[in-house]
Amino acid sequence: MMYPKESNEVSSFMLHQTVISAKVGTSTFMEALAANGTTNIQTSVTGVTASKRRFIDDRRDQPFDKRLRFSVRQTESAYRYRDIVVRKQDGFTHILLSTKSSENNSLNPEVMKEVQSALNTAAADDSKLVLFSAVGSIFCCGLDFIYFIRRLTDDRKKESTKMAEAIRNFVNTFIQFKKPIIVAVNGPAIGLGASILPLCDVVWANEKAWFQTPYTTFGQSPDGCSSLTFPRIMGLASANEMLFSGRKLTAQEACAKGLVSQVFWPGTFTQEVMVRIKELVTCNSVVLEESKALVRNIMKVDLEQANEKECEVLKKIWGSAQGMDSMLKYLQRKIDEF
Amino acid sequence: MMYPKESNEVSSFMLHQTVISAKVGTSTFMEALAANGTTNIQTSVTGVTASKRRFIDDRRDQPFDKRLRFSVRQTESAYRYRDIVVRKQDGFTHILLSTKSSENNSLNPEVMKEVQSALNTAAADDSKLVLFSAVGSIFCCGLDFIYFIRRLTDDRKKESTKMAEAIRNFVNTFIQFKKPIIVAVNGPAIGLGASILPLCDVVWANEKAWFQTPYTTFGQSPDGCSSLTFPRIMGLASANEMLFSGRKLTAQEACAKGLVSQVFWPGTFTQEVMVRIKELVTCNSVVLEESKALVRNIMKVDLEQANEKECEVLKKIWGSAQGMDSMLKYLQRKIDEF
Amino acid sequence: MMYPKESNEVSSFMLHQTVISAKVGTSTFMEALAANGTTNIQTSVTGVTASKRRFIDDRRDQPFDKRLRFSVRQTESAYRYRDIVVRKQDGFTHILLSTKSSENNSLNPEVMKEVQSALNTAAADDSKLVLFSAVGSIFCCGLDFIYFIRRLTDDRKKESTKMAEAIRNFVNTFIQFKKPIIVAVNGPAIGLGASILPLCDVVWANEKAWFQTPYTTFGQSPDGCSSLTFPRIMGLASANEMLFSGRKLTAQEACAKGLVSQVFWPGTFTQEVMVRIKELVTCNSVVLEESKALVRNIMKVDLEQANEKECEVLKKIWGSAQGMDSMLKYLQRKIDEF
Repeated sequence: MMYPKESNEVSSFMLHQTVISAKVGTSTFMEALAANGTTNIQTSVTGVTASKRRFIDDRRDQPFDKRLRFSVRQTESAYRYRDIVVRKQDGFTHILLSTKSSENNSLNPEVMKEVQSALNTAAADDSKLVLFSAVGSIFCCGLDFIYFIRRLTDDRKKESTKMAEAIRNFVNTFIQFKKPIIVAVNGPAIGLGASILPLCDVVWANEKAWFQTPYTTFGQSPDGCSSLTFPRIMGLASANEMLFSGRKLTAQEACAKGLVSQVFWPGTFTQEVMVRIKELVTCNSVVLEESKALVRNIMKVDLEQANEKECEVLKKIWGSAQGMDSMLKYLQRKIDEF
Repeated sequence: MMYPKESNEVSSFMLHQTVISAKVGTSTFMEALAANGTTNIQTSVTGVTASKRRFIDDRRDQPFDKRLRFSVRQTESAYRYRDIVVRKQDGFTHILLSTKSSENNSLNPEVMKEVQSALNTAAADDSKLVLFSAVGSIFCCGLDFIYFIRRLTDDRKKESTKMAEAIRNFVNTFIQFKKPIIVAVNGPAIGLGASILPLCDVVWANEKAWFQTPYTTFGQSPDGCSSLTFPRIMGLASANEMLFSGRKLTAQEACAKGLVSQVFWPGTFTQEVMVRIKELVTCNSVVLEESKALVRNIMKVDLEQANEKECEVLKKIWGSAQGMDSMLKYLQRKIDEF
Repeated sequence: MMYPKESNEVSSFMLHQTVISAKVGTSTFMEALAANGTTNIQTSVTGVTASKRRFIDDRRDQPFDKRLRFSVRQTESAYRYRDIVVRKQDGFTHILLSTKSSENNSLNPEVMKEVQSALNTAAADDSKLVLFSAVGSIFCCGLDFIYFIRRLTDDRKKESTKMAEAIRNFVNTFIQFKKPIIVAVNGPAIGLGASILPLCDVVWANEKAWFQTPYTTFGQSPDGCSSLTFPRIMGLASANEMLFSGRKLTAQEACAKGLVSQVFWPGTFTQEVMVRIKELVTCNSVVLEESKALVRNIMKVDLEQANEKECEVLKKIWGSAQGMDSMLKYLQRKIDEF
């Protein structure tokens, strides 16, 4: 197992945490790893100001009980969520995809429910905004096809309705969320993982991230309101090339087309994001919410309708023999490629 | 007459076709030339996969009756249409502007009716999509001013109504078309030739193409729903610069502003387009139509209204002495330039 | 006092004007300076065509009465307006911000009323369009905070209503204006100075200009319909980065994102703008107005609603102790920076 050089201090610290977590009784090595990803991100960020770095360094020499308290807080999140990591920070909530019930941070109803639950908590507490990102080198690979196909094979009619419903609710949670959602796209964002971005407010991307919505390729129609938001953001010609032809955009291209607010170099990505987040949380929370309402309310009805219609079509396609067949063929091709 | 080297085999083949077409009795040399343009494009494309190239090469040694059958199919299109070439292909319909009743693929009611008729046929048959392009080095120079002025001089009030009506119907055919329309812009797209692009779904452009809507210069107001689509696609500042100041965009600029999906080098343009078209026609036709419906339906009413209003204004301007005068002055300036 | 070399002839001419203005009785040296700025711009522009340059040169040798007539026309504008310079030209009206009641061309109710008055005059006379720019190196720094805070400290409830009302009316004048408004952004455009741009029709910017709407930073919500226009023009991700995070855009970036139509080099900026303005005023005025109506009318209701809602929120924020506090803190920080 390799750690980047800069997080050496953290990795040694994490070993402690793993042991402690194990004593608490619910944590596995995987969970520690997930938590590690988080801590890792934050360490590199807290390194921005020299004073904070000193604080981290000092902490290594602090008495054991302080460390314990910290790791317990980490563990609470790990206890409550399996597929995401949630860190309540000063003024904001950080939600990170780190799925264990799916591969590559892909979305099944269980992952989606956890994100919805974390968003609902952040809506009710004193968080001024939500930072949404992912642990590892992938942001989100869209729908968890393995999960979906398994279910559809059981009972196509019933399961296609349930699946469409799960997506509808997940997407609607983003539409209705009143506090700003800032996304830090750390890596590839595919399908629903890309289409959900315009439902968030500011999108900062790592240079290494890329964006693709190859819906027609796997016999699916657009989701996440992309049939509405993509044309509005980048014009019909570009939107349709993504939605129909599955064109892949680099981070820079996605930025030029308006899907991404700004692109940062991998080396300083988390740092750049965190500096801006800390600036944002100094703002008046009423001003942030009212500003978001001004920007969003005019398109809310359109978004709700787009979500409804998209999920209607998905249900119809998944409920048909032809739709199932396209999805299976796509998966078969993907398996054959490896 | 010069042919590019790569189409030598086709040109010799075309000579046969010209002779045969002549026997059918309706074809002229110009028609053969138009058909030639088409075949030419397809030959260079079929060259993409080695196996298909072999097929073409073999064909040169095939018995004459096979060639006859092929040329008759070509001739059917030539028989039915004068100003366009229509090629029904596997999974899609290829419509090419190749006007004989106007210069530079410009649009008069007769050309427009042929395009509408070809679109209606493609809507009803098993085509999954339509590929729309043009023969030669020009895509479409907008309205056929020579035709329009000739008519307006006869009976301004009556003809301005008829002209506006022809444009209204032409534009509406694009608005209502349910299958994806892919445009391959081979050269300059001016006026209605440019404004119609956002009514299509994917727009691929040759590096050499350029885009201009100098409406105010010839005393006209926007058409083809550009008063609605251009601001939505590229923002008001850029849209108005095109609509008011007649700013000319290069293919790269049009791509950066969202009017064009992607730009390809002249040498590989048809090839790149055809590879993507062939990929697209492997998709489920229900998925393609449903996806287009999701993207388009939300803006359909707006497009219909924009079309109605634009044509109302055009009728009013063309019906006025001042409007006629502006158009005549513009033509005079153009003639003086040569 | 320094003049750029090219305007030497003007500056000597302006001395005359100052004397004459002084006789009229209302002009101060500052007013002459403002008018000078205008004349300066126009001189460099009229230099575009050699024939016109000759005209200017000749004018230096013309008898005094001609100069007198010209300077009186200048003085009329100076007499009528304190914070703007208005030049009625052949076919258009040139309105320049040149505030004396505020710093950096920032907007208080008095400045706004003058702009509205000049727009109303241009709406009624034979101007085909309005050219909107500013004297000096700054375009417009948004709201005049010093003015606003002074008033809010007096009577928060009453003054916040009055202020919101002033902005509402100012913005609405732009929304309702029927002739094209072309903006030449000579320098920084901040807050309302930037958000008003999409309510104009064509936006040409000097390379040196930059654009910023740091509303949340000074505890304010979006104004000038930017909550509607910014997302429509540049997509949500970029718009929100400007509206929430106060990201500053260079002229080139603003152009890439669609806020600006085209960027020109400082050395030829006025020249490039004037060439295009002169081209535009050769167009039929009916065509210009009808074209603007086609582009604008579909979004007019949305703009009116956005303006209403934005001003409602501003009134609410300014009327609260917290809102006042944020604004004061921001000003304090700004003062501390110097």
